[in-house]
Amino acid sequence: MNDFTFLSPTRLIVGRDAELQAGTWVRRYGGHKVLVHHDSGYCESSGLVDRIVRNLQEAGLETVVLGGVVPNPHLSLVYEGIELCRREKVDFLLAIGGGSVIDSTKAIAMGLVFDGDVWDLFASNETGEAKAVETRPCMPVGVVLTMAATGSEASNSCVITKADEQLKRFCDNDLHRPVFAIENPVLTMSLPPFQTACGVIDIMSHSMERYFSCEPTGNELTDRLCEAVFHTCMDCGRKLMANPNDYDARASIMVASTISHNGLTGMGRKNNGDWSSHFIEHELSGEYNVTHGAGLAVITPAWMKYVYRENMPIFLKWATRVMGVSYDWDNPALTIEEGIRRLEDYFRFLGIPTTLHEMPDVGVVPEEIMWKMARRVRITNEDGTVGGLKRLGTEDIVNIFRLAQ
Amino acid sequence: MNDFTFLSPTRLIVGRDAELQAGTWVRRYGGHKVLVHHDSGYCESSGLVDRIVRNLQEAGLETVVLGGVVPNPHLSLVYEGIELCRREKVDFLLAIGGGSVIDSTKAIAMGLVFDGDVWDLFASNETGEAKAVETRPCMPVGVVLTMAATGSEASNSCVITKADEQLKRFCDNDLHRPVFAIENPVLTMSLPPFQTACGVIDIMSHSMERYFSCEPTGNELTDRLCEAVFHTCMDCGRKLMANPNDYDARASIMVASTISHNGLTGMGRKNNGDWSSHFIEHELSGEYNVTHGAGLAVITPAWMKYVYRENMPIFLKWATRVMGVSYDWDNPALTIEEGIRRLEDYFRFLGIPTTLHEMPDVGVVPEEIMWKMARRVRITNEDGTVGGLKRLGTEDIVNIFRLAQ
Repeated sequence: MNDFTFLSPTRLIVGRDAELQAGTWVRRYGGHKVLVHHDSGYCESSGLVDRIVRNLQEAGLETVVLGGVVPNPHLSLVYEGIELCRREKVDFLLAIGGGSVIDSTKAIAMGLVFDGDVWDLFASNETGEAKAVETRPCMPVGVVLTMAATGSEASNSCVITKADEQLKRFCDNDLHRPVFAIENPVLTMSLPPFQTACGVIDIMSHSMERYFSCEPTGNELTDRLCEAVFHTCMDCGRKLMANPNDYDARASIMVASTISHNGLTGMGRKNNGDWSSHFIEHELSGEYNVTHGAGLAVITPAWMKYVYRENMPIFLKWATRVMGVSYDWDNPALTIEEGIRRLEDYFRFLGIPTTLHEMPDVGVVPEEIMWKMARRVRITNEDGTVGGLKRLGTEDIVNIFRLAQ
Repeated sequence: MNDFTFLSPTRLIVGRDAELQAGTWVRRYGGHKVLVHHDSGYCESSGLVDRIVRNLQEAGLETVVLGGVVPNPHLSLVYEGIELCRREKVDFLLAIGGGSVIDSTKAIAMGLVFDGDVWDLFASNETGEAKAVETRPCMPVGVVLTMAATGSEASNSCVITKADEQLKRFCDNDLHRPVFAIENPVLTMSLPPFQTACGVIDIMSHSMERYFSCEPTGNELTDRLCEAVFHTCMDCGRKLMANPNDYDARASIMVASTISHNGLTGMGRKNNGDWSSHFIEHELSGEYNVTHGAGLAVITPAWMKYVYRENMPIFLKWATRVMGVSYDWDNPALTIEEGIRRLEDYFRFLGIPTTLHEMPDVGVVPEEIMWKMARRVRITNEDGTVGGLKRLGTEDIVNIFRLAQ
């Protein structure tokens, strides 16, 4: 086990009608005037935003509403939010939505305490470093979660896109972790099966990136915690395909989303995991505008096939314990390949293709596009590669795209 | 899944020589003058206390040292600590030790912000209620952990004994949760096998109390998290009996102790679990002065045999998934009984007896002592019973002692 620190201060408030506790919790965390930040989809049309605004006002709080967050949230709206909050003297930020809304809110929270351009706090793909660092606590952020996927409700991650330059950048920082996350599983019941499935895959992926790290052994507890997330996602995901209104399955998936990306399943792992599938997928999403979870369903199995020989013990543990494969004593590699095959089967059961050419928005990817995407992948190592289990150069990434074809 | 809130704000700092970060973290949490609280055993004789005091002083902090904490920590020392901290104008409390030292420190932290007698914050066994409630944040508590067992380093629990009246009382409160817990697995390597074993059993028990609750299904995620703790404890406990210096096994057990009692494995469960084995064991400990973990090794299997028919699905899940028993389709109860037998086998492998008459400090317990202990067990339900899976009256508790005989 590698040395680590773990901090997850976000208070989870989970249950039916939990969003009606928003006013109470904002007050307990010292808020008086609240920015309510949301997207323009279900949150607005279903009346959820109005219901929460009313709840905040009944709790004696003033509110300012800013909607319009889009997937891959835009820097321009972040600027607008910072400007609005300064003008209105807001002292608490409440995100209503999924990862995009939460990330947009976190960026506003950082911008409000930072004297320069908030974009300078976001790290570039090329160098992995940001121009500036902010060490003061952010304005407090609360969340009413409406989607189980990104885990942004309790994570230190924030991803913002500068739309005019097609730049997607990251700011990982403990200071913007939300103070509370309100999770009402009922709010996720109306998601279409495709979005539910992509969420389940994203949640699994956050722990797979950590589980398949470079240590062959020595993290028994966190390996088991990852496996708890995998089993839960697979069992409850199956239940949700049969019955989208299964409350207990929705609840388990929702809380799994939170603990799969708050750092718990990464404790003791070098660099908190591998993360190359995520970064490769981000370029696929950027090129073809595919949903992150759907992209992961294609990239992750291809990555596994390409790298598993670098750390057979961890892949064997996973194939036998999680995927239920019998250990093949004559040919252990076959055990792993069968595990990967079953994972692909599961993704297809969820209705998500596992090859590029089957993806509706992608199809057969020309070699030159593969090279273009591979060259853009975020670099995480000093030697210009990405990933921890196997350090991947540009050609490796192209090989993974070829395997995913 | 029942509605719940979950909060675990304690920062974990885990690794080799992690105690040398004490000064840095105390400063980051705003301390200037630190009470260093400890027991008179290994922490003192090994030079650990001196090493940490030096580290604090090198970080520019003033220190006041108070040793002498005993197992089942005494109220009298808590009073002494409060008095000392007020006189010396201490602004941070650092516990060096295991559960007893941490609980003594938490009680001092509460006493320092409470105007009345700190003992009034502790709930009586008879009514389950305390005379007074304190809602202001405590003085901050940090921990350097030297034992993996109670989970007090990140829990909301605190147990103090008023020695002259033989009263052991509880104060469960989020306000006294430590701000950080420093965990160096190397510090636990010198524990004798008996204490290591008792720790492992205590850690398992904190999740068993939560796992075997009254809900038959519906908590898939937290069931799996409990199972992660069970598997880790059993696998790593086995390794430690063979090699007490196995760093990775020590580390997994140490972090398991923290997450097994910070509330994570109780999410979504009614009343956060059952807890009757714990409360029954407390009376056994009180009567015969046995170590808590050793007492649990006797009480828990007896309790299981007595109650399992109240919730067969959860016991079947455990027997098959955790204890590796093949499901007996002709007689499911036999599946469970085999699971319990394997659990007893494991405790005996750890060197801990599983019957009262085999315990060195106990032997054959007379019926009248069984009744005496049973009548003293902490009441948790309004109808005068204890426990959630099966509500146990005095006669039920005597029956469990008989099964444990």
